[in-house]
Amino acid sequence: MSDIQCGNGKSSGGVKCRMSWYERFVQPCLVELLGSALFIFIGCLSVIENGPDTGVLQPALAHGLALGLIIAILGNISGGHFNPAVSLAATVIGGLKVMMLLPYWISQLCGGMIGAALAKAVSIEDKFWNASGAAFVTVQEHGHVAKALGAEIIFTTLLALAVCMGAINEKTQSPLAPFSIGFSVTVDILAGGAISGACMNPARAFGPAVVAGYWNFHWIYWLGTLLAGLLVGLIIRLLIGDGKTRLTLKGR
Amino acid sequence: MSDIQCGNGKSSGGVKCRMSWYERFVQPCLVELLGSALFIFIGCLSVIENGPDTGVLQPALAHGLALGLIIAILGNISGGHFNPAVSLAATVIGGLKVMMLLPYWISQLCGGMIGAALAKAVSIEDKFWNASGAAFVTVQEHGHVAKALGAEIIFTTLLALAVCMGAINEKTQSPLAPFSIGFSVTVDILAGGAISGACMNPARAFGPAVVAGYWNFHWIYWLGTLLAGLLVGLIIRLLIGDGKTRLTLKGR
Amino acid sequence: MSDIQCGNGKSSGGVKCRMSWYERFVQPCLVELLGSALFIFIGCLSVIENGPDTGVLQPALAHGLALGLIIAILGNISGGHFNPAVSLAATVIGGLKVMMLLPYWISQLCGGMIGAALAKAVSIEDKFWNASGAAFVTVQEHGHVAKALGAEIIFTTLLALAVCMGAINEKTQSPLAPFSIGFSVTVDILAGGAISGACMNPARAFGPAVVAGYWNFHWIYWLGTLLAGLLVGLIIRLLIGDGKTRLTLKGR
Amino acid sequence: MSDIQCGNGKSSGGVKCRMSWYERFVQPCLVELLGSALFIFIGCLSVIENGPDTGVLQPALAHGLALGLIIAILGNISGGHFNPAVSLAATVIGGLKVMMLLPYWISQLCGGMIGAALAKAVSIEDKFWNASGAAFVTVQEHGHVAKALGAEIIFTTLLALAVCMGAINEKTQSPLAPFSIGFSVTVDILAGGAISGACMNPARAFGPAVVAGYWNFHWIYWLGTLLAGLLVGLIIRLLIGDGKTRLTLKGR
Repeated sequence: MSDIQCGNGKSSGGVKCRMSWYERFVQPCLVELLGSALFIFIGCLSVIENGPDTGVLQPALAHGLALGLIIAILGNISGGHFNPAVSLAATVIGGLKVMMLLPYWISQLCGGMIGAALAKAVSIEDKFWNASGAAFVTVQEHGHVAKALGAEIIFTTLLALAVCMGAINEKTQSPLAPFSIGFSVTVDILAGGAISGACMNPARAFGPAVVAGYWNFHWIYWLGTLLAGLLVGLIIRLLIGDGKTRLTLKGR
Repeated sequence: MSDIQCGNGKSSGGVKCRMSWYERFVQPCLVELLGSALFIFIGCLSVIENGPDTGVLQPALAHGLALGLIIAILGNISGGHFNPAVSLAATVIGGLKVMMLLPYWISQLCGGMIGAALAKAVSIEDKFWNASGAAFVTVQEHGHVAKALGAEIIFTTLLALAVCMGAINEKTQSPLAPFSIGFSVTVDILAGGAISGACMNPARAFGPAVVAGYWNFHWIYWLGTLLAGLLVGLIIRLLIGDGKTRLTLKGR
Repeated sequence: MSDIQCGNGKSSGGVKCRMSWYERFVQPCLVELLGSALFIFIGCLSVIENGPDTGVLQPALAHGLALGLIIAILGNISGGHFNPAVSLAATVIGGLKVMMLLPYWISQLCGGMIGAALAKAVSIEDKFWNASGAAFVTVQEHGHVAKALGAEIIFTTLLALAVCMGAINEKTQSPLAPFSIGFSVTVDILAGGAISGACMNPARAFGPAVVAGYWNFHWIYWLGTLLAGLLVGLIIRLLIGDGKTRLTLKGR
Repeated sequence: MSDIQCGNGKSSGGVKCRMSWYERFVQPCLVELLGSALFIFIGCLSVIENGPDTGVLQPALAHGLALGLIIAILGNISGGHFNPAVSLAATVIGGLKVMMLLPYWISQLCGGMIGAALAKAVSIEDKFWNASGAAFVTVQEHGHVAKALGAEIIFTTLLALAVCMGAINEKTQSPLAPFSIGFSVTVDILAGGAISGACMNPARAFGPAVVAGYWNFHWIYWLGTLLAGLLVGLIIRLLIGDGKTRLTLKGR
């Protein structure tokens, strides 16, 4: 994650960016699509094929490790978001050019649909429908909405913090960032898989919803995650960002 | 964990510290509060939502990976303690200014209460009370106290050693420190979750105790962990620290 | 994985390669044989000894962590493939000399047979035959072939991408590559162990097939994985490789 | 693991070793004792407290992650062996001075007894004796000895290779070595916990044997592991070591 500046909006001082138009604008979107498709393919299958004896361990490890490794191998090209809420937070703190936000979102949502469709294509039909195609079905009644929404906000906050502090905010950048981010997904699912599904990613919600045609309470996974993306952007801009990123409290 | 010197008490020789008052004193406390809240939120939920088929794997992985990733993304600002016993050990070996110990403790305990309260807010009431809000209920009789206290001392020793040797003692500092520390929590829970609860952290004990109003044998998790913090400080100062940290046996 | 250039086909500009003939040609093959034998020994035993209560977690963690660690300790000598499909992808993107492909394949297949034979030697006979010696028996009917073949192609794509992007393509090389690659195997098994067996490696399929004499639908694990190796080579050469690796879209 | 040369026998060319006698000879032994005690304490408890629903996952993760983290935090002082068979292999390839081998062995065996005794002290008596104090009881009949001995040899070969290639042999040294070594223990237990117990460490066998007074087939865990230590030393010295370590095939 050392040379994402050029393709990602943070042009470093005197260094002239010599990447081609293709590498700055097209390749990052291609990579967000490819990575989102692979991540959501693995994620959906780990839910569809989840065994009865291991609780949430299988989806927790599959989602987290898959996200971590895909960021490790593709993050240097696109920043490694694979998640519209994360791209929103990155944009707020200056880690992604505003003009790239919409192309990233479209790439991530297309990736989500491709991943979910491939998961449907290779899984046995019975298992696929038993799991509602890995769409989020945890919330079944209105009384449960507030808790699920609150949970999604906090879970996504941890994930977006892991991306923004581990891979963008210079003072806290770390070579371990890919797996820090992946583990934030793992622990969120271990903590709240049974509360809200621990989605944290509109593309992960959207893809299977399209493929399985399941849209109940779908809005929770957009509202909660995008609110968290905004919240993390503000926390970093106002309070915990480094001198370069923080907008306030910069005096000596 | 490379530039924690300025905010953390170890001012390196000739390098002049140019961080602002906010970055040296307020931001570390804010980050300790935020990190403790997120860590204890995840930890409590992983206990409240723990499934019947996976033993202690779910809380062990959730606590350990959550602590590891939060240290990886926030450690460069505050040193990444999120634990009063760890802050005590760090103070003893010179990794935290004495004047920052009390503010750190207050931040960590407030974070613990916030994390536990958020865990209560998003979880189903039945599950919350079945798990006593993730307060430590392992010790139920006086005959069990000595074993639990001894276990907490040894478990916390491993955790505090992982922080002090992996992230502070210069000769053994390593970029893997965040996950070394996280894994110390994971293995402690795998080894002793059923003996003492493997708390190792007064803030992790205090938050849920306040929220659930459960105080039986609560003192074990203060006495054992703080004793271990002192013990680790002494072992490093007297025996295994590097030439700079060790107070004795410095001759040729 | 920093100095694989000499033995592996990518001779870096002006640097003269001073490794001996033994180190350039024989040692890499020896290491591929040794690593494949150890990896496949662990992998087969984790299937033969798989317990009834933990779903696919045991083989998923055993295969993934074993591959990751063996790449970490031997990868600097041979590139760390241990898999004919990965060697094919590496050859296509210029990460392995064409003349070394066949020797690597032979080493990997011999390693596979040795590993499977050792697994047979140390396991109890009943358990060995109950698990068909860890040969791939998931596909039992013709109606299931298309799904299994498709799954193997996508799973192997993720694995080969992890190797080629994480360890060969310069822009995205990362010190975390060994465990990124290992985790790609773990998540593939978590996602699709029950669909196709999540083999992703002709040597892993071939060794146990020889030792157990089980050849039903064996061709799936050659065709699917090698196709994926080719596919990944093309994706990188045409679309997502860096300026040095990509053959197209190089203009400003 | 960058500056183990001084205390560990490999004095690098012109660099004058300025560590004190205490740091070169006493501290490494102290650290081997401390690390072995903590590792074996965690390991034994993870067996004594192993739940009925998670197969070998709990001991596999506890042993592997504990060893990995303890090497990460203490390895720079002593080389991070905590295992007589590993110290033997390190000595054969020049990673440990011959005169330090016996002191290391004594430290490791004392650490093993302390760790096992502490595990007994904190665990409930029933559980302790049900698990025979975590002594190795897998082999119960003479017909099983050959398989168990063979398994221990291969398992320990993987562990000793991980140490010698990942942390000592310069060409393949890697910052990931601590967790590579830890994961070798994890995968060995996942593969063979039910065959031989996957001990791989005479100190891990000896400590609980003393504390529980259980000595049946104890010799397997000395003979198998030490043979593997020798075997790994020879493989590296003769075949896969780098130009500096290898004794043969050095011509152009």
